[in-house]
Amino acid sequence: MSKGKLYGVGVGPGESDLITLKAYRLIQDADKIICPSRKKGVKSIALQIIEPHLTEKSELVEMEFPMIAIEANREELEAKWQENAQEINSYLEAGDNVVFITLGDAMVFSTYAYVLDFLLEEGIDVETVSGIPSFCNLAAKINVSLTQGEESLAVTSMTQSIEEIRAILDIHDNIVIMKVSAGSEIIAEELEKRGLENNFTLISNIGMETENKTTDINDLKQKIPYLSTMLIKKNVKFN
Amino acid sequence: MSKGKLYGVGVGPGESDLITLKAYRLIQDADKIICPSRKKGVKSIALQIIEPHLTEKSELVEMEFPMIAIEANREELEAKWQENAQEINSYLEAGDNVVFITLGDAMVFSTYAYVLDFLLEEGIDVETVSGIPSFCNLAAKINVSLTQGEESLAVTSMTQSIEEIRAILDIHDNIVIMKVSAGSEIIAEELEKRGLENNFTLISNIGMETENKTTDINDLKQKIPYLSTMLIKKNVKFN
Repeated sequence: MSKGKLYGVGVGPGESDLITLKAYRLIQDADKIICPSRKKGVKSIALQIIEPHLTEKSELVEMEFPMIAIEANREELEAKWQENAQEINSYLEAGDNVVFITLGDAMVFSTYAYVLDFLLEEGIDVETVSGIPSFCNLAAKINVSLTQGEESLAVTSMTQSIEEIRAILDIHDNIVIMKVSAGSEIIAEELEKRGLENNFTLISNIGMETENKTTDINDLKQKIPYLSTMLIKKNVKFN
Repeated sequence: MSKGKLYGVGVGPGESDLITLKAYRLIQDADKIICPSRKKGVKSIALQIIEPHLTEKSELVEMEFPMIAIEANREELEAKWQENAQEINSYLEAGDNVVFITLGDAMVFSTYAYVLDFLLEEGIDVETVSGIPSFCNLAAKINVSLTQGEESLAVTSMTQSIEEIRAILDIHDNIVIMKVSAGSEIIAEELEKRGLENNFTLISNIGMETENKTTDINDLKQKIPYLSTMLIKKNVKFN
C-alpha cells in the first residue's frame, strides 16, 4: 500500500460556499479530515464551514492546538505540534489521504503553517490549498477595494508590537489588522491620534450568524469578539 | 420585470478549480458574463480560468478595459469606464443577472474596483464575491507562510514609487510585490543592497501551463512575464 498524501486546505473566512472547488473535492474524497480545535470538544469555525459538505463516510479527527502565545510557550507548543505531526503521519503510513482544514487562507496567520514545518521536516508529502482570507471577504462585503493603483496594503495583527503597528500606520494608505481583539483600545487610540477615527471598518465573526460590522470608534473601547478583522483606509471615510 | 443584479466575481489566480463554489454557481446561472479584455479579441486569463465551467447557454460579453497608466490617462480611462458601466446597466435594466469576472481577488489591484465606483454612483446593486489572490497561491505552492506569529505582511506593486517600496522593504519581514515586470531590475538592485538576494521567490503565469518559478536574482535582470508575483521573506533563504 502506498503512503497517503496530506492536504492543508484553507476553507475561507466563514460562508460554506466560499471554499474552492478544489477544497470541496478534497473534503468529499478525504479518508480523514483533521479538525484543529483549541480545546477538546470545542467545534472549530473551520469545521462549521465545511459541515454542509461532509458525506456519510467523512471521518473527522479532532486535534488539539492550544491557543496560547507562541513566543512565551514555544517549548510546550512545539511538543504538541510534534505529537500532532506524528499522529497525522500514522494515518498517512496507513495509506489514508488526509485533509487538514484551516480557517481563511492556509498561509496567513494560521496554526497550520507551524505544523507544516514539522511535517516537512519529517519528509511528509504536503500540498497546501489556498482559501479566501478574511480581509478579502471584508472588502467584498463593503464594496471597497483593499488596494488599487499606486497604493499598497499592509496586513498585520494586534499580536505585533505597537511600535511596528505605528510604523505601518505611518507608511501605508491601506491597513488590515487581524486579531483586533488582542488590543482594540490601543488601536482606537492610534486612530484618534491620527484623525482616522472615521476611516475604518471592523467586521466580527464574518460570514457567521453573529456577523457584526461597525465603523464607530467607541465600539473599539469595549470587548470585541475574538474573530475580528479591521480595514483602515486613509483615503476613505466610512461614516 | 425586475432589474437584474451585478456580481463582481474574483476567479482566483489561474487554476480552474481554485474558484469558489459561489463563483461557480453564479457563472453557471448568469444571463451575461462580462469578460474584461485589455484589447478587443484578446482572450483574458480570467476567461480562460472559467472556460471549463461555462454552459451551452453562457453568454459572454467582451468589454474593453485599456491597460494604461491610471494617473497619466485618468480622463480617457474614466470615459471608458463610464461607457462600460452604462453598458452593464443596460443589461441589468433588461432584467439580466450579470457576472463580471476578474482575475485573483476582486479587491486587490483590480480594474473591477474602479468600475465598481462608477456602478455604485449610478445606484446599481452590486455584490462582490472574493477570489483567491495570487500571493496566497504563491505561498501555497512553495509551502511557506506569508506571515505568522508576530510578523506582518506588505502587499505592494511595482507601480508604486521606489521611495515607498524602500520604506516597505525596511519595516516588513514579509513583502509581496505584484506587477514585478514593471521594474524587476530595480527590485533586484534593492534586494542586493540589502543582502536579500537569496530571500525571494518569483512566480510567473501562476496556475497556467507556462508557470515558472525562480529564486535566482539574475532572472530579475531580464524581461519577465507580465503576470509575475514575488514573495520576499527576510527570515527565509530560498536557495
